[in-house]
Amino acid sequence: MVMIRQWVATGFAGILAISMGSAVQSQPKTEARWTIEDIVTAPEVTDIALNGTATRAAYVVKTADIGRDRPIATLNVINLHDGQKKVLLRDRIISGLRMVPGTNDWSVLADLGAGQQLYRIGADFSIRVELAHRPLARVGVSDGSTNFGSLDMPLDVGILSYAWSPDGKWLWYSSIRPRISRAVLFDTEVAHQLGVRRPQKSADIIYHLRSIDGVANEVAVRPPTDRIAQFFGGTVAWTGEEVQFSIEDRPSDGPIRYERRGVRLSDRLVRVLADWPASPFARLPPGPHGGRLTTLGIGHARKLVEVSETRTLRDYGKVDFLIDDPRSAGSWRSRDGNATILGTRYLEHPRYGLVLINKNQAHAISSNLSLTKCDFTPDLKRGVCIRESLSHAPEIVSVRPDEAKIDFIAAVSDHHSAISELQTTPATWNSRGGYPASGFVVWPRHYRPGIRYPAVIVTHGSDADERFCRDGFQWNYPVQFFAEQGYFVLLVNDPTPSQSARLSAAYARWGSGTGDLPAAEVQQLIWLEGVGAFEAAITQMIEQGLVDPDRVGIAGYSRGSQMANVTMTQSTMFRAASSGDGGYLEPSAYPRLMKSYDAIFGGSPFGPAIENYRRLSPSLRADKASGPVLFQMATPQGGAIDFYRALRAANIPAQIDLYPGRDSSSDEAHIFTIPSNRMLAMRENIVWFDFWLKGKAPAQQPFPDRGAIWSEMATSSPLRPAEINGSTP
Amino acid sequence: MVMIRQWVATGFAGILAISMGSAVQSQPKTEARWTIEDIVTAPEVTDIALNGTATRAAYVVKTADIGRDRPIATLNVINLHDGQKKVLLRDRIISGLRMVPGTNDWSVLADLGAGQQLYRIGADFSIRVELAHRPLARVGVSDGSTNFGSLDMPLDVGILSYAWSPDGKWLWYSSIRPRISRAVLFDTEVAHQLGVRRPQKSADIIYHLRSIDGVANEVAVRPPTDRIAQFFGGTVAWTGEEVQFSIEDRPSDGPIRYERRGVRLSDRLVRVLADWPASPFARLPPGPHGGRLTTLGIGHARKLVEVSETRTLRDYGKVDFLIDDPRSAGSWRSRDGNATILGTRYLEHPRYGLVLINKNQAHAISSNLSLTKCDFTPDLKRGVCIRESLSHAPEIVSVRPDEAKIDFIAAVSDHHSAISELQTTPATWNSRGGYPASGFVVWPRHYRPGIRYPAVIVTHGSDADERFCRDGFQWNYPVQFFAEQGYFVLLVNDPTPSQSARLSAAYARWGSGTGDLPAAEVQQLIWLEGVGAFEAAITQMIEQGLVDPDRVGIAGYSRGSQMANVTMTQSTMFRAASSGDGGYLEPSAYPRLMKSYDAIFGGSPFGPAIENYRRLSPSLRADKASGPVLFQMATPQGGAIDFYRALRAANIPAQIDLYPGRDSSSDEAHIFTIPSNRMLAMRENIVWFDFWLKGKAPAQQPFPDRGAIWSEMATSSPLRPAEINGSTP
Repeated sequence: MVMIRQWVATGFAGILAISMGSAVQSQPKTEARWTIEDIVTAPEVTDIALNGTATRAAYVVKTADIGRDRPIATLNVINLHDGQKKVLLRDRIISGLRMVPGTNDWSVLADLGAGQQLYRIGADFSIRVELAHRPLARVGVSDGSTNFGSLDMPLDVGILSYAWSPDGKWLWYSSIRPRISRAVLFDTEVAHQLGVRRPQKSADIIYHLRSIDGVANEVAVRPPTDRIAQFFGGTVAWTGEEVQFSIEDRPSDGPIRYERRGVRLSDRLVRVLADWPASPFARLPPGPHGGRLTTLGIGHARKLVEVSETRTLRDYGKVDFLIDDPRSAGSWRSRDGNATILGTRYLEHPRYGLVLINKNQAHAISSNLSLTKCDFTPDLKRGVCIRESLSHAPEIVSVRPDEAKIDFIAAVSDHHSAISELQTTPATWNSRGGYPASGFVVWPRHYRPGIRYPAVIVTHGSDADERFCRDGFQWNYPVQFFAEQGYFVLLVNDPTPSQSARLSAAYARWGSGTGDLPAAEVQQLIWLEGVGAFEAAITQMIEQGLVDPDRVGIAGYSRGSQMANVTMTQSTMFRAASSGDGGYLEPSAYPRLMKSYDAIFGGSPFGPAIENYRRLSPSLRADKASGPVLFQMATPQGGAIDFYRALRAANIPAQIDLYPGRDSSSDEAHIFTIPSNRMLAMRENIVWFDFWLKGKAPAQQPFPDRGAIWSEMATSSPLRPAEINGSTP
Repeated sequence: MVMIRQWVATGFAGILAISMGSAVQSQPKTEARWTIEDIVTAPEVTDIALNGTATRAAYVVKTADIGRDRPIATLNVINLHDGQKKVLLRDRIISGLRMVPGTNDWSVLADLGAGQQLYRIGADFSIRVELAHRPLARVGVSDGSTNFGSLDMPLDVGILSYAWSPDGKWLWYSSIRPRISRAVLFDTEVAHQLGVRRPQKSADIIYHLRSIDGVANEVAVRPPTDRIAQFFGGTVAWTGEEVQFSIEDRPSDGPIRYERRGVRLSDRLVRVLADWPASPFARLPPGPHGGRLTTLGIGHARKLVEVSETRTLRDYGKVDFLIDDPRSAGSWRSRDGNATILGTRYLEHPRYGLVLINKNQAHAISSNLSLTKCDFTPDLKRGVCIRESLSHAPEIVSVRPDEAKIDFIAAVSDHHSAISELQTTPATWNSRGGYPASGFVVWPRHYRPGIRYPAVIVTHGSDADERFCRDGFQWNYPVQFFAEQGYFVLLVNDPTPSQSARLSAAYARWGSGTGDLPAAEVQQLIWLEGVGAFEAAITQMIEQGLVDPDRVGIAGYSRGSQMANVTMTQSTMFRAASSGDGGYLEPSAYPRLMKSYDAIFGGSPFGPAIENYRRLSPSLRADKASGPVLFQMATPQGGAIDFYRALRAANIPAQIDLYPGRDSSSDEAHIFTIPSNRMLAMRENIVWFDFWLKGKAPAQQPFPDRGAIWSEMATSSPLRPAEINGSTP
């Protein structure tokens, strides 16, 4: 057994100055303050790749073009010696950035006018078509398209995904072929259409293999239900003789089945492989001893181990992180096989790091900042990463894994790096059942001790972590702007199931129906313990004299909307809520969600199980709501409409909004993509909480007609806005 | 008071040979028999118009083009002297055929390649554009279109509707202008999106007035919620000085409001008129005394009256028909105002006739055949009509109203007129509560006394009447082919509300929420009394030795699907059902149908009203079903999926089919429009009832894979197909 060595990255001294768990203000770099526009344009680096000589890195930044009111991606290149940056491409979507093995070029998927195709970026930054596939297939959540979950805006796809062989000579790629069948559907196929809005074209995914001599052949056809094909391009691996890929079969009646197949390069012969790893969607590279890397144990007993083919265990010691989180930085194996680097995600102070695993030991590389995207040289001696945190804008850093040395090279967005950092402290709160929930406190910009501030909880599953201003977590809740406006913002995760066998059992029962946990216990563990954690967080803030108990709100979208809706109808601590694009847990959705509802409620709401719905379904508890609820929707989900109506019927103030799509043929995406929608929705959230928590008449109402309606609801409801206390902000 | 004179039309002697209420076979004209193709191509005359000299009539026939697999309309002209016919146009949709006043021309709406525009047909049959409006707007149930309920297939509309001034010099017309707003929607606007499949573009309807000098002006803009604008072109009337039209306002919260407005021809000034007639959707012309024509009283006490402006009544005597049924032939007023002709619909033997109302008396013009479309000369002395019945193919006849003289001119479809007529007898059956239900018995082609036959009820509200082979009634249930195959087919209407104040009150409670009839009574009157009428019809047939009690089925679409589903779960007499494109009455639809469900069930199914759902909702009574149910769907309606699943969960054989639209961007229409879909669905109904009622293995299964599934369901379910009895057909 080898012990783990915990290093704290030393590359950037500034980060050490950020104190944790106390209320000391951070040192502002400048006096620049957060605006709504800053939030909408916050940069997210989605890809990074070194070139063959490791002198440069290319990276893709996702942001928003406010002027043209659309999301935008840029392909950038940075000289790692002098930090000089250059924008090579601007496009709506750029993805799949990779080094072309054995060259000094990169390859990338982009649409330069001929649909999404594969381009090659030369060392001289020239851009040329590497491979174009036709006909194009329109994908996205738009009428007449094929809906591939990963793409939310209409995009004409030639090449969907690709993978180079290690020598750069063979190319595996996938394309989309719409089905044009007009068959009559029967039984379960019809039931699958239940509640479908904007029915989509069905399509197959075609795998192609381009050989050394440039000839491409179709090697497999996968149905649209194969998520490995849709999202992961087959999770391809290359041996000398064959290219291996994974398939998923999801029959309408029967269990999901996974299989790994190999295509022999010499003659395209396809065989089914015997071995099948644990996770079908991601394949971690082997460890330095050729075994499978994984973690065993739960909570503080978790260990990093390597399991050999003969099932012997090599123990690398206890770890407080997970190695298979898809949000982490990735995985790499050295060419000689003696070392592996894995991206890590920490559970207690949720952030991203790396672990370098050598023959004898594992070295965790972490700091209070996250490393969210990386690439390494083939010997794993040098690398480049994106470093960021909740309050720290992303920057490009060089990494020397052996020394855990991290050096700042350049900011990704000088504008965002210039904004004065907000004080953010990680924290953990225990639910009533004793399940810890991790999270963060974002302090009001000019916090003054002795004053009680209003507070808003923002929640979205486990996405509260050290990543910068992510729309996938904070959605249309302008965390940073709330802090500028004098709110405490508490970013609170659900108690993570990976810390408890009982929580894990509840999530397994919910997700796949396994086990026999009773409905009441599933409800308690997945929703009510979460409410308890929120209450614990607020209670602590009140006890510390930081938060005014009469001015507390909650906001969350999707999973967060479940928690916001349940919290408002179970707890009495919250005076207002904003619930985004959700509507789960309402009984009327039973026919669409039978499987998961059976786990939560024990059956149909039209039978005896109705008692279990009465215990949890927000609309059936609307008369118990502790405050007004705003629903901001991308699609008109029935559950949200049900809860909205039930609140109004109970004379609880409520409003439901449907934000428009780009045009009448599409809806806004679940995570909003249209900058003007995001800005409107953020402004609406500000005035909503200002009105109900601070009693402030909305001066900057983005929808001027609504002010009078809110006032009228406030007057006629027993739930009035909190009075303004002269001495509080 | 003047008495009504009942004339029996004498123009066509053959009709008198059809006996009523007895089982005598009709005289076959030839030995031609009904095929499925004959049903799909059955002609329906949708428009007829005399020319200015009344020497010719033009008429539009709606039918199907099996080869090109689409509906088709033809514009035909017939010489009224010699019966010579000529086809002038073939197009997918032809509508709005009218004489151009003061000329010998016709005008008609058709799409000859430039969208739906107004064309003029000259006396020499030349066709030229009368008026073209641009830009075009795409309407229909297809992605990216504007859904105007009257049109089920995508159509590019320039001109939606039009009306000539009496002198033919002014032209009122409407066009469609799609809205391009991308506004955020709030509250009830969002709730309106609940359960919407294929969201449509919103559009306004623009009214234009073209003056004598050919200049057109916009005179009004109506929202898409104005059904008078959508379907009736404003129900326009002309005075010398102004053109008057009606508007409907349907605010999302508040009662519907109607208003009549006038546009002054001289300066387009719009004013609101004081008067407002009873029916906003149809304006019957004034009676010979300038008063309003209507019927008063219910059932056998119904009288035809003319109400003057001073509310005095002129009584034209008792009548057994209604004058405001939109399916009847139309209405005309003589130029001198001394006479009015109205289309009538009879209640007991449901058919269409005319009533000529002179100063002193009213003459009903009727026979056992219907007059379904007509046009008359300005003096009402001569006219042309379409005469048809359930078994008698449509033909063009001349009409002299004063003498009630009707003369055959020509068949509309020689092919269909050559099919040997089936024996069809009108009948009336009393529900348990004593409410009579009208209907017809269609006899098996080669009926032999002493043998008991299988029977199928076909039902669709009040549409069982003397019209020829209408898809709007019989849908995909091939009534004629069932009779050819040795079935009795009973066409049964709901007990008509117009015969009973109590039934009317139940329908009013259901339709508009008025009154306070308890839910249980609404259920009884609108659904359970109907089941009782079906049972009475079958019981009578069994008692008369005609029908085998073990081989009785039921089929209905839409309103008929409600009745089929309720019947199968309330009665024990029916061994199989086919339920078409419905799903109403299921509790999961409550959020979408609150208003009407409140009337039927008394509230949400998630509260105490669940007891009322248990009494009526088919899925909650699936274990009581008396036989298998086939669901043929145009769209995947949730209620049908709920009932299908509940039947399968109760081990009752059931199948749900979704028939495809023309392509992936559209669904099949509620009344199927694609000939291949209709033919498949009809064949499927034949084999479904043959299998479950006759125990016949489906030799001609249109979906070969389904045979084994049916057999397996039959084997595993307690509900097996009836055994074949050697002596019966």
